[in-house]
Amino acid sequence: MRWKTYGERQVYTNPWLNLCLIDVELPDGQRFDHHVVRLRHLAVAVVLNERREVLMLWRHRFITDAWAWELPMGLVEEGETPAATAAREVEEETGWRPGPMRPLIYAEPANGITDAEHHVFRADTATHIGPPTELNESDRIEWIPVDRIRGMIDRREIISGGSLVGLLYLLVDGVGGGVDGVDKGGGVDVVDRVGGVDVVDGVDVVDGVDRAL
Amino acid sequence: MRWKTYGERQVYTNPWLNLCLIDVELPDGQRFDHHVVRLRHLAVAVVLNERREVLMLWRHRFITDAWAWELPMGLVEEGETPAATAAREVEEETGWRPGPMRPLIYAEPANGITDAEHHVFRADTATHIGPPTELNESDRIEWIPVDRIRGMIDRREIISGGSLVGLLYLLVDGVGGGVDGVDKGGGVDVVDRVGGVDVVDGVDVVDGVDRAL
Repeated sequence: MRWKTYGERQVYTNPWLNLCLIDVELPDGQRFDHHVVRLRHLAVAVVLNERREVLMLWRHRFITDAWAWELPMGLVEEGETPAATAAREVEEETGWRPGPMRPLIYAEPANGITDAEHHVFRADTATHIGPPTELNESDRIEWIPVDRIRGMIDRREIISGGSLVGLLYLLVDGVGGGVDGVDKGGGVDVVDRVGGVDVVDGVDVVDGVDRAL
Repeated sequence: MRWKTYGERQVYTNPWLNLCLIDVELPDGQRFDHHVVRLRHLAVAVVLNERREVLMLWRHRFITDAWAWELPMGLVEEGETPAATAAREVEEETGWRPGPMRPLIYAEPANGITDAEHHVFRADTATHIGPPTELNESDRIEWIPVDRIRGMIDRREIISGGSLVGLLYLLVDGVGGGVDGVDKGGGVDVVDRVGGVDVVDGVDVVDGVDRAL
């Protein structure tokens, strides 16, 4: 069931976004101008180290007035591949240079009103090369143990869409898949409850299977 | 590290979105007008049945020209709670009336440019009440086995941000938590590979633990 479109006109244009009106006709015959916000693509990086930690930034977002942990991310520049953007943003924002970037998950965060695309990548190594060069983004740069992420999501300490999609996929995917290059095969993910706190014991190796990335 | 803001002016206003310019000063002293797209809140529903299936819609999104499976979702109306929106949208779009809605996960899908909020709920029961009343949304309404979702994400058959966040959280959370009201306790999630296809065997019961919802 496709909506028919009859043309588009631009309401507002700018390097950051374009606001358009698209003349659409719904299957039931309704026809109207639908607003569309055209946005630049975003690249996001899930960078892991050998201790099962993820590189994250604690930052304030003025638009939603929220403090939260986020993955390194940034807008894809003209002529740049999303993977290159992800690697560049990690280095600029954290001072760590990630190893090879593999596509992890793709999302269209708000496809009812925008054409935004989130391209999320994963790197399993990183080398510290110096202080971050982007100094406006975060107060704290930390390696966060993967086992803490679920609780942080439940406490709304992680809320950005690109971060959630990448981290949740990582949790589903299992962290063992590429950290040390060893395919661990099918395994068990044991969750226990210790002193009222959810604890994930050991290494999640549920995803030892091959996957086309 | 907060960005200072000195005021806001509206560039374009409409019932669907407001485009604003906010006068911001970065920590390094840069000061400029930052675009912000103010959007209405979205409610999303993960509805399960007793067979470990999730209620989904196959639909085309004209903005990104993509066909994909999505969860029922819709904009929160004036005076409506997000939970009520989620329940209403399920009924309108699918003809199923969901049981009690519990908050599942909260996301700000594009917090670098919009103030959009995604409120995702979960219901563990549903009753069929008739045909859907919203006839412009989808070609197919189906109950999708939870075990197929990971593969669908990998094949980009699920791409909408709200759907991904809800479904990935469901996969991390485990489906056993409330489907039949029985706390299954810590368990195992066994992944195997059969004939080249990833198969999840049995019921995922990793999340029998209580969680503040």
